[in-house]
Amino acid sequence: MYRALTEAEVVEYARALPGLFTGAVPLLSREIGDGNLNMVFQVSEDGGEGRSVIIKQALPYIRVIGESWPMTLDRARIECEVLQIENEYDPGRVPQVYHYDTDLALFIMEDLSEYMIMRRALISRQQFPNFPRHIGRFLARTLFLSSDYALESGVKKKLVGRYINPELCKLTEDVIFTDPYCDSTRNNYHALIEEEALSLRHDEELKLEVAKLKVQFLTQAQSLVHGDLHTGSIMVTDTDTRVIDPEFAFYGPMGFDIGAVIGNLLLNHAAHIGHTREPLQRAEYQQYLLETIRGIWNCFEEEFRALWKTRNLEPSVNMDGYLDYLLISILQDTAGFAGCKMIRRVVGIAHVTDLDSIENEQLRADAEKLAIANARKLIITRAQILTINDLVGMIINS
Amino acid sequence: MYRALTEAEVVEYARALPGLFTGAVPLLSREIGDGNLNMVFQVSEDGGEGRSVIIKQALPYIRVIGESWPMTLDRARIECEVLQIENEYDPGRVPQVYHYDTDLALFIMEDLSEYMIMRRALISRQQFPNFPRHIGRFLARTLFLSSDYALESGVKKKLVGRYINPELCKLTEDVIFTDPYCDSTRNNYHALIEEEALSLRHDEELKLEVAKLKVQFLTQAQSLVHGDLHTGSIMVTDTDTRVIDPEFAFYGPMGFDIGAVIGNLLLNHAAHIGHTREPLQRAEYQQYLLETIRGIWNCFEEEFRALWKTRNLEPSVNMDGYLDYLLISILQDTAGFAGCKMIRRVVGIAHVTDLDSIENEQLRADAEKLAIANARKLIITRAQILTINDLVGMIINS
Repeated sequence: MYRALTEAEVVEYARALPGLFTGAVPLLSREIGDGNLNMVFQVSEDGGEGRSVIIKQALPYIRVIGESWPMTLDRARIECEVLQIENEYDPGRVPQVYHYDTDLALFIMEDLSEYMIMRRALISRQQFPNFPRHIGRFLARTLFLSSDYALESGVKKKLVGRYINPELCKLTEDVIFTDPYCDSTRNNYHALIEEEALSLRHDEELKLEVAKLKVQFLTQAQSLVHGDLHTGSIMVTDTDTRVIDPEFAFYGPMGFDIGAVIGNLLLNHAAHIGHTREPLQRAEYQQYLLETIRGIWNCFEEEFRALWKTRNLEPSVNMDGYLDYLLISILQDTAGFAGCKMIRRVVGIAHVTDLDSIENEQLRADAEKLAIANARKLIITRAQILTINDLVGMIINS
Repeated sequence: MYRALTEAEVVEYARALPGLFTGAVPLLSREIGDGNLNMVFQVSEDGGEGRSVIIKQALPYIRVIGESWPMTLDRARIECEVLQIENEYDPGRVPQVYHYDTDLALFIMEDLSEYMIMRRALISRQQFPNFPRHIGRFLARTLFLSSDYALESGVKKKLVGRYINPELCKLTEDVIFTDPYCDSTRNNYHALIEEEALSLRHDEELKLEVAKLKVQFLTQAQSLVHGDLHTGSIMVTDTDTRVIDPEFAFYGPMGFDIGAVIGNLLLNHAAHIGHTREPLQRAEYQQYLLETIRGIWNCFEEEFRALWKTRNLEPSVNMDGYLDYLLISILQDTAGFAGCKMIRRVVGIAHVTDLDSIENEQLRADAEKLAIANARKLIITRAQILTINDLVGMIINS
């Protein structure tokens, strides 16, 4: 039977599992979740040098909102299974899963305490030279290997059915594609950008393109996407990169994941208007972010092309032109979804620390306007993007 | 427990069902299936004036091929359920279902003995003035009402999962989108068009476009499509139209169904090169077929636009331009899928009587070449089609 565990109950639970901890050492538990949806406990051997694991439990509602917004416990199954699938596709890039408990909607995984949340590291202008290679490869492997290009037709269809994720998809549909463009009570924006926020609701050119992207999100079962791949779902060290939290996973458009990463880098890019006042320093870090975006796409494309050569099961698409056509369509989708992800983080229910932590209100507003302007351009003109340089070349820095 | 029923067993089965037949009258049964996959029994009260029903039973393999090609019995569930869904969406346009038996993979439905198979009627140059209105409306209602435009997001996703139809989709993927363009042992074409059949395998421009359509078939969960809507799945009288056999149903592209109808009308259009030697008579009937295609699209569009106004649940797409964009994209998909359906009926495993029944080999070859030429044009140049007149205007008559 499901029950939400306390810190103390989590210790008992972990202790009772054979093979997880040795019996002798006392265990400490603390709730460390800073996400919006779930409880996240760190359980470790007392003394700080011993074993430590993460126990993540879904609540039957959205944590930050409360019981008024119920949310399926099945998301724990999806997250846990998809972590294991992603680990097959790109070993070591996600936390290792040790245990899953259907009844309690919880699973136990590797503790990544020595990693930083990437979003925070970017706010403090840190650089991660391995990140483009790691995430580009992760995107290529998870998106290609779960697609019709790599899986036998029946196997892929079975996975589509297994990862139909109605409640979490509905959340995305509402808060990313719908709310920002209408008078929704969930919207939330700072007073100084009210004009920009309101104008989104009457921007017919933009709304038409967002509608197309929303319908693509609703209908295109291309790959098993992570579904929420922002920089808060990425953990980094100086040398390593890990992807966490795939509870929004479902079969959707490849560009939705790539766009999530790039969109969040561009939110950070805009936020340095507030965080980094020294012009040269800001220009340099913005340049670093744009190079990172270029690098992610190039690594994605390189790995995708390599997989195409060796792992493509679909002979019907093995002809001149198809792969180029596919990559351009993924790139254009990426631009569109990146833009949608950016706009909702400025005017919708869930903001990003990158922007919200800018203390000077006017600078924050400038940064938010820049994010909206870049996002709009990506969405509106995405059909003209043929290379990653076209995409990066659209971005203005201030 | 499943067992394939004999004609005698079918009588016992029908007799035992309460409410289907009254006890007194003797029943007659005969197997009347002329399809490729299943057993179809007509069970009627002796004397010819009494009640009569159809009992359709799936075999655990493809009937025309035999036990060497196993095929899921679950197709009976899908067919039976989808008939009932279609009957909700467009009442009276499909046979009424009376009974479903999971174990025996059979269902009982209305007998349409007084109807003709449309394909045969077209070969003998009959005209059906109500057909465009009936089928256009059926297409609009079934495709619109099962889509994200008309269903709440979670309801539609549940249906997607329920009608994942891997084995029958795989058949379509192989025989429509793959075999005709490679050296498959399943291909089958007459000697006089060998050159055309072989040239398809090296037609890189065509193969690229067919690849895009195949991937769209694999990934686009737009509507609950019938999946096999050729003129052998349509029954007609002088005044009425019925759609049968939706066992290939799944969530796929809307244009796949509309393209099936139009593609099969165009196969018939080409076949009159052999069937109708008198030039004026042929021109007149070909003109009738092209007008029928125009009428189908116009009725589809009219009904689709009416449903859009009254039944659209998706406010994000209610802006100038979206519906026009959607209808053009459906029309272009229709052209592409029509072309694919035509080519496979000339060079693939399953032919159509329209062409195969032409006795003069040279005329049959001329008709087959015409069908391939029109099909190729529809596929290759579909992106230029903006209206149904553009589509019909592409078709050459000889």
